Amino acid sequence: MNAPKFSDLNPPSRILLGPGPGMTHPRVMRALTAPTLGHLDPELLKIYAEEQDLLRYLFQTKNEWTFALSGTGTSGMEAALTNLIEPGDDVLSCIHGYFGARLAEIAERQGAQVDRIEKPLGQIFSVDEIESALKKKKYKLITIVHAETSTGAEQLHIKEISAAAHQQGALIVLDAVTSLGGIPVKIDEWDIDIAYSGSQKNLGAPSGLAPITAGPRAKGVIEKRAKPVSSFYLDLKQYANYWGNAHGYHHTASASLHFGLREGLRVIAEEGQENAFARYRANAEILWRGLEAMGVPPFIPIEYRLPPLTTAKVPKGCDPHKVRARLLNEYNIEIAAGFGALKDEVWRIGLMGYSSRRENITLFLAALQELL
Amino acid sequence: MNAPKFSDLNPPSRILLGPGPGMTHPRVMRALTAPTLGHLDPELLKIYAEEQDLLRYLFQTKNEWTFALSGTGTSGMEAALTNLIEPGDDVLSCIHGYFGARLAEIAERQGAQVDRIEKPLGQIFSVDEIESALKKKKYKLITIVHAETSTGAEQLHIKEISAAAHQQGALIVLDAVTSLGGIPVKIDEWDIDIAYSGSQKNLGAPSGLAPITAGPRAKGVIEKRAKPVSSFYLDLKQYANYWGNAHGYHHTASASLHFGLREGLRVIAEEGQENAFARYRANAEILWRGLEAMGVPPFIPIEYRLPPLTTAKVPKGCDPHKVRARLLNEYNIEIAAGFGALKDEVWRIGLMGYSSRRENITLFLAALQELL
Repeated sequence: MNAPKFSDLNPPSRILLGPGPGMTHPRVMRALTAPTLGHLDPELLKIYAEEQDLLRYLFQTKNEWTFALSGTGTSGMEAALTNLIEPGDDVLSCIHGYFGARLAEIAERQGAQVDRIEKPLGQIFSVDEIESALKKKKYKLITIVHAETSTGAEQLHIKEISAAAHQQGALIVLDAVTSLGGIPVKIDEWDIDIAYSGSQKNLGAPSGLAPITAGPRAKGVIEKRAKPVSSFYLDLKQYANYWGNAHGYHHTASASLHFGLREGLRVIAEEGQENAFARYRANAEILWRGLEAMGVPPFIPIEYRLPPLTTAKVPKGCDPHKVRARLLNEYNIEIAAGFGALKDEVWRIGLMGYSSRRENITLFLAALQELL
Repeated sequence: MNAPKFSDLNPPSRILLGPGPGMTHPRVMRALTAPTLGHLDPELLKIYAEEQDLLRYLFQTKNEWTFALSGTGTSGMEAALTNLIEPGDDVLSCIHGYFGARLAEIAERQGAQVDRIEKPLGQIFSVDEIESALKKKKYKLITIVHAETSTGAEQLHIKEISAAAHQQGALIVLDAVTSLGGIPVKIDEWDIDIAYSGSQKNLGAPSGLAPITAGPRAKGVIEKRAKPVSSFYLDLKQYANYWGNAHGYHHTASASLHFGLREGLRVIAEEGQENAFARYRANAEILWRGLEAMGVPPFIPIEYRLPPLTTAKVPKGCDPHKVRARLLNEYNIEIAAGFGALKDEVWRIGLMGYSSRRENITLFLAALQELL
């Protein structure tokens, strides 16, 4: 077999304004190339400890079990479910977009009996709707997405939903993939049992790590399981053993990715997350005003519209996919199509982390104007 | 909650001579910082296609299903098993070290009935031993490790073992984590059904990706499953849909890691894998002669000793862990302790990919000499 020959790597410089990855922060880029450390090097273990503190700051939690898993946000989703669920468990999936449905699918693959309640794309749940579903059956856990990447909607009332779940004896798994680092995520105040995210959205790092945090209630359920977790790779007890004082070998974590994530988190901590959130919100408002002025209004009502991800209605007679392709090919700007039924109806425009800069918004609006 | 403050990232420059990660190739380091691409960017999809060709070259296969999974080598192990196994399936695990035992554990977590045959640490199986185990029961698959990272032994006769498995109607899963890129791995000639590896051993890249290849027999079994794979994250059909012509969204793969792996593979292809293997072997022989001269002889017989990973017997009266700590703290050289029962008996010295350079071997031998 002959060795294939390929040219030097020369990817184009994209301006990433899609639903993630966001742009990698230049400080993170430099951190990626720090000298590689072994996965049990005492110097790497110190970096983990700092990363944990930074993640606890962002998740607003004191949870001991706060790590970054060696996988993308979907691995965080799967870890939450595979660790909590045993075959036959009853799960209530509250679905207001694609990722809510993915949670339900993963729960079913783990052998759960899943009941679904669904909202049309672009809407969110009231506390009442979830409360009344919770009263119909005794569930082991409920799943819900905080920031739906498929619609750009923020599920409000998470604290109340969490209280309703706990009142009925159910745990709550919160998808914080697109919220963490972009809007407040208050794990302890909201009393969330497990939440997870991805390194590539608002954290300024490449994808490949999934921040996750598990509270005492979840930890108790996991420790009392009758059967081991079906996934060895995503077993949180193994993670606790590796990241905790025992530092027992589990897998060969990527020092490079951890260097990058720590730096991305440090950038946020230096600014202060509240300041970062206010800045992202102000930037998003500039985008929203610009879109409205252009006849491309945001799809989600202002009350629960997400600063990190805007869905905007495609004007009549416009081919959204052609515009998207031209933005990419002529301007190096990446945005995304709508998801599922919204495929031809909306664009998805992300302002995630380091992508959320005034110059990107001005350029994007000007480019879109030229194309419309 | 106050934002934690941590200093700039300044990890020490380690010379990585442990059981992986190997050192990251400087060309790979540069590739990591290429501009981030979205996971569906046509330019990234082109890079995947090249990466697949490079992986096929290294695996010596024409398998269509040849990808790099978004996880470490252990995710490759879990993917192989979770995709092939359904609850109740009979699995024969051939164990000649820690990673063989890990395969058995993961198969059990997937609900398989696992029979184990075991060799003492440092030994390998004869074809006869596996053949006679295969005759006792009808197995769906057998698992075996090509290069045991826990002992430094190469399991020889893989082609014959594979033929024996197929003759009894069983599939074969081969762990190629420490072999791929370090010694020949001939998937098609040996007729292997699934093999997997890790990006951080002999491929010169950081950890975080798991090359995997699945042949037509495995693909057929996966496509005819009665139940979906328990893991959504590691579902190979989803990978095939993402990497194949449909390019359907599955997860947000890390462009940075793929840039790095492609470059690491390209470095090997430029040299030619046979030339690289010969060079690694010659380097390992220098290490082995040096160790022998110092009274620290290799533990594994020459017939099946692995160039990428040497276990060496700790001399009497020497505290292996003190020596290891001094190598790290005084010389910045990482080697590892033995595994399990060999913990105090051997050191594990890796010469993986870019770590396998004459200057590293000379330095290591001189440093060890100073400490003994």
